[in-house]
Amino acid sequence: MFLKEMSRDECQRVVAAGDLARLACCKDDQPYIVPINYALLGNCLYCFSMPGQKIDWMRSNSKVSLQMGEFASNRQWKSVVVRGRYRELAQAQGRRDERILAWSILEKRPNWWEPGGLKPVPREISGASAHVFFCVEIDEMTGREACAGEL
Amino acid sequence: MFLKEMSRDECQRVVAAGDLARLACCKDDQPYIVPINYALLGNCLYCFSMPGQKIDWMRSNSKVSLQMGEFASNRQWKSVVVRGRYRELAQAQGRRDERILAWSILEKRPNWWEPGGLKPVPREISGASAHVFFCVEIDEMTGREACAGEL
Repeated sequence: MFLKEMSRDECQRVVAAGDLARLACCKDDQPYIVPINYALLGNCLYCFSMPGQKIDWMRSNSKVSLQMGEFASNRQWKSVVVRGRYRELAQAQGRRDERILAWSILEKRPNWWEPGGLKPVPREISGASAHVFFCVEIDEMTGREACAGEL
Repeated sequence: MFLKEMSRDECQRVVAAGDLARLACCKDDQPYIVPINYALLGNCLYCFSMPGQKIDWMRSNSKVSLQMGEFASNRQWKSVVVRGRYRELAQAQGRRDERILAWSILEKRPNWWEPGGLKPVPREISGASAHVFFCVEIDEMTGREACAGEL
């Protein structure tokens, strides 16, 4: 097995193909991680979340990091780390088209981290919803790939 | 599917059974995530790592967060978040027994994140090694469990 650094294009392909990441935010020097579903569109990762600690923290400090990857085996995997900035997409700010576009991608994917009854449904996107809709604007992506065999 | 909060004992069982976590540290309000292998002993998560950004950052700010989990399916999973503090176990500080004990657990597990040729081997534990040996002292564990069916 050997490790190699991934190019920006290789990182992009892993992020585009995936839908589950770990997101880290921090407040007062304390980091916090949660799993989250996302959809990549352009240079942004779109996400829905119920209100809570991570939303509160990202509102006070927009710097975030996400990690995602593909794992064929313990000796063959890709891991990407994204550095980016949280941007909330409030309903009042005329982001309806952006919400619907992101939802059309997110709804096709499993929604692991929310209780079924609280899933954001299309009806709620255009009306009142408890969910917070946000994106992470990607500033940097780096990745490492483990390959079977020898260099 | 419904979600429930896990007790401390339930969190402990998930952490003890696992060996792979995502670790987040932060510096100057910027979080950073990496995957890492660990072994739980008492109230500490023991880890080896090559020197690099995460070690530099944890040396300057010891507050960390880890996330790990068990995933039977998209609708049946457990996720635990640990809040803790980085403590480096320098060879000069007479931690040889602690290193060997932790290594005896870690060596039985796959070492996904390091190139094979740079794995810490027992010989290196008692001698000079490029690896940094550290533990995370657990301050808090919280968890959520998704269960199939209805409440």
